[in-house]
Amino acid sequence: MIIARVVGSAVSTVKEGKLVGRKLLVVQKATPENELYGEPFIAVDTVGAGEGELVFVAEGSSARHTEATVDAAVDAAIVGILDSLELNHKTTFRKE
Amino acid sequence: MIIARVVGSAVSTVKEGKLVGRKLLVVQKATPENELYGEPFIAVDTVGAGEGELVFVAEGSSARHTEATVDAAVDAAIVGILDSLELNHKTTFRKE
Amino acid sequence: MIIARVVGSAVSTVKEGKLVGRKLLVVQKATPENELYGEPFIAVDTVGAGEGELVFVAEGSSARHTEATVDAAVDAAIVGILDSLELNHKTTFRKE
Amino acid sequence: MIIARVVGSAVSTVKEGKLVGRKLLVVQKATPENELYGEPFIAVDTVGAGEGELVFVAEGSSARHTEATVDAAVDAAIVGILDSLELNHKTTFRKE
Amino acid sequence: MIIARVVGSAVSTVKEGKLVGRKLLVVQKATPENELYGEPFIAVDTVGAGEGELVFVAEGSSARHTEATVDAAVDAAIVGILDSLELNHKTTFRKE
Repeated sequence: MIIARVVGSAVSTVKEGKLVGRKLLVVQKATPENELYGEPFIAVDTVGAGEGELVFVAEGSSARHTEATVDAAVDAAIVGILDSLELNHKTTFRKE
Repeated sequence: MIIARVVGSAVSTVKEGKLVGRKLLVVQKATPENELYGEPFIAVDTVGAGEGELVFVAEGSSARHTEATVDAAVDAAIVGILDSLELNHKTTFRKE
Repeated sequence: MIIARVVGSAVSTVKEGKLVGRKLLVVQKATPENELYGEPFIAVDTVGAGEGELVFVAEGSSARHTEATVDAAVDAAIVGILDSLELNHKTTFRKE
Repeated sequence: MIIARVVGSAVSTVKEGKLVGRKLLVVQKATPENELYGEPFIAVDTVGAGEGELVFVAEGSSARHTEATVDAAVDAAIVGILDSLELNHKTTFRKE
Repeated sequence: MIIARVVGSAVSTVKEGKLVGRKLLVVQKATPENELYGEPFIAVDTVGAGEGELVFVAEGSSARHTEATVDAAVDAAIVGILDSLELNHKTTFRKE
């Protein structure tokens, strides 16, 4: 799963049936040091993530394997909020 | 799901059986500020999107999880029209 | 689905069982103006496409959702031949 | 499957239901000579891999085809620990 | 399917259950002229491919659609050995 930061949100009135009621967040990939890279995209939130939080995102068919997204036309879902990351025995990120 | 703008349309007479009758639009990835990037590709429209609109596109197997595309050889489907996008508490896009 | 041009063909005697009898074409991605880019790859033809034609290709699991490829180890299938493409209300490609 | 090195670990208290109890490691792609490249991401460990080990990672829906990840929202799983790699008849990596 | 050349092999004692007994080869993408590009990765051989041979590889869920890989955590499988490739009516590769 990619490491990503929640950077915003999206509003969509006209959307495919099974997406109605889903929380659409804008996320951007991040390094373990919480530096952003790549272009933002939209992911369905399944864990109550908030703006600024570092999360991990399941992509592809795996994004449909949550209670909130089952069988929906979703190819990216936030499936966890990161508390901390450790790289080479050094903490690179800790949630405040 | 990627953010994309509808930039055109495609006509195809000879196509795989389950694609007959599907509306084929040309889309291109866009930033949250509605700037285009990447190369255009073809997506099936499932929400009545029009040229120039900012939409989001489900890719891969998730593109088959709409009423219009179920079990079809489709790997990209427009699944929502964007009304607005907010990044870092600033509106970067609003539909006119 | 990506826009691609048929640029050649492949011959393979030794191949996985369900691929026997499948027509293997070499395709390369193309812009809506029919300019090639990226590296060529192999796609199964499901619509009778010929060399030089502009087509669109379904990738991933969706490539198995045609009559010719069902349940086969195929991750790219030509699923339509393009007659024309229109971008920003201008025709960028028309089949001759 | 990509070749990757385990470079760290992730802690996440709030995560999607079926991910509870899964060991989340941070991995980074590696060449057959064990040189890192690309950005780190998170994979579920299914084989007891340890930090510093060279492993191979199944991505996409195949990441759900292990006992530890079946039906979970997982798009990357460590599915083997590499003992050695040989390229052009030369050993490029051997586990110590 | 991507065009690739078999450049080596991998040994892994500790691996996910359904991968036991599978032949793990190291492959690298190749142009139709048999020039290598990209980083090597691991694919399960399903057709008896040997080092140096030009093959084609099914990726993603399609890699599980062979007799040797059904339901295994495999995201890349060699599914055919190339005899020849023709581009723009010129033979770019012929197996010796």
